[in-house]
Amino acid sequence: MTVVKQVSPQLRVAVIGAGNVAGHLAEALARVGCLAGVWSRNGNHASSIAAPLNVPGGAMSDLPRDLDIYILSVKDDAIPSVSAVIGPVAGIVAHTSGTVSMDVLVRERRGVFYPLQTFSSNRQIDMSEVPFFIEGSDADVSETLMNLALCISSNVRYAGSDIRATLHLAAVFACNFTNHLWAIAEDILRREAGCSLDVFAPLLHETLAKAIECGAGISQTGPAARGDIHTIKKHLQRLDGLREKIYQIVSQDIMNNNQN
Amino acid sequence: MTVVKQVSPQLRVAVIGAGNVAGHLAEALARVGCLAGVWSRNGNHASSIAAPLNVPGGAMSDLPRDLDIYILSVKDDAIPSVSAVIGPVAGIVAHTSGTVSMDVLVRERRGVFYPLQTFSSNRQIDMSEVPFFIEGSDADVSETLMNLALCISSNVRYAGSDIRATLHLAAVFACNFTNHLWAIAEDILRREAGCSLDVFAPLLHETLAKAIECGAGISQTGPAARGDIHTIKKHLQRLDGLREKIYQIVSQDIMNNNQN
Repeated sequence: MTVVKQVSPQLRVAVIGAGNVAGHLAEALARVGCLAGVWSRNGNHASSIAAPLNVPGGAMSDLPRDLDIYILSVKDDAIPSVSAVIGPVAGIVAHTSGTVSMDVLVRERRGVFYPLQTFSSNRQIDMSEVPFFIEGSDADVSETLMNLALCISSNVRYAGSDIRATLHLAAVFACNFTNHLWAIAEDILRREAGCSLDVFAPLLHETLAKAIECGAGISQTGPAARGDIHTIKKHLQRLDGLREKIYQIVSQDIMNNNQN
Repeated sequence: MTVVKQVSPQLRVAVIGAGNVAGHLAEALARVGCLAGVWSRNGNHASSIAAPLNVPGGAMSDLPRDLDIYILSVKDDAIPSVSAVIGPVAGIVAHTSGTVSMDVLVRERRGVFYPLQTFSSNRQIDMSEVPFFIEGSDADVSETLMNLALCISSNVRYAGSDIRATLHLAAVFACNFTNHLWAIAEDILRREAGCSLDVFAPLLHETLAKAIECGAGISQTGPAARGDIHTIKKHLQRLDGLREKIYQIVSQDIMNNNQN
């Protein structure tokens, strides 16, 4: 993991929350010496993140009021209520959500500090490559959050709510839906061939690498891209229910795109 | 690239064809000293693959008749006619298709030598990790093709036509359809956020790694997995045509799976 840039003067940052995003952000901020501590509604979870990082941690009642930035990393629905619990502070309060407006934080110095990545408790993430999208209530807030993000990642941009909404919609197709198609393949492989998705690992890594490097549109292959109606019919005979419909409709969209 | 195993005695193998699969197989076979040459209907293309590998290459009329294995790497529809052009040989004739029956090769010693990977002319592939699926007309043919595959990959299995058909169906979901969803995301990102699929690279690599390591079914995230009807409605308002239908139907299938 690379430390990309060190801010000066050093920012003192609270992470508020105790989920996967909070844990990964706290670790990355501790690494660059900006983490003042971790606090959450359930103080125990925050303490268990804070302890190995050698910073204070606990319940919201112990939250210091003199920090520079409060990063609010909680579920979307909880952002307004947790912001209210913080109460009045001079520092910036920013949430980490890709979908929620900055303005649910009813305070003057507010912002968004959105890392575009999927975080799990048991998986290491190289934060220096994670794209961060920043929004601020004024130029000074934006610049401060940009500088903080640049401490932990080399890939930081400004993005208003419209752009974040677009990123989220595109990510549902690119990430959530593709994962579901892998789950369908996984199920077919397990039931009908007695093997796991593992057998596709080299194929899938290469397909993804090619899509990112060359563009997904021009990298399309397969029966629909070739207009191979014979194979499409054979496959549809082996499917039913929503899987049959998914196969039909995605194939149709691929064929339409190739006609353009 | 790792040389996994050296066969003994050395097999003498012809690659017949001049496409991407033929080119990558020829290179891998040359590396382990098994490549007798490359031949194709258009001799020029075969020669251009053969020349840098320092083996003979050219038109089908120059094909030697005394080799151990003839790997027929041509388009599915062309397999029967190219097999006929080879004529009678004592060696094994095997095709590399994931979908075509072994029996379109009307000869006694026939087989399938199927590498489960997507090949492009301009991309290096680590053949030692590519899964090979082998079928043979008898035990001796199967064993010979297995041994050849084990020279170039550590990941080799027997698979009859049924298993290959299942792999192909699953691969359409896992590879072709996921690529199309990336193409949709790519288009949304370009039109509405002015960026390329590149911005999703860390997210997509991590999503894929997690699906393969932990299983795609249990790794599912996103609005449909959470039952977040509000976000789903907002997204559907921004879509139309087949994209709207794909969003609806894949979300429905994710929600159905999560109820199970």
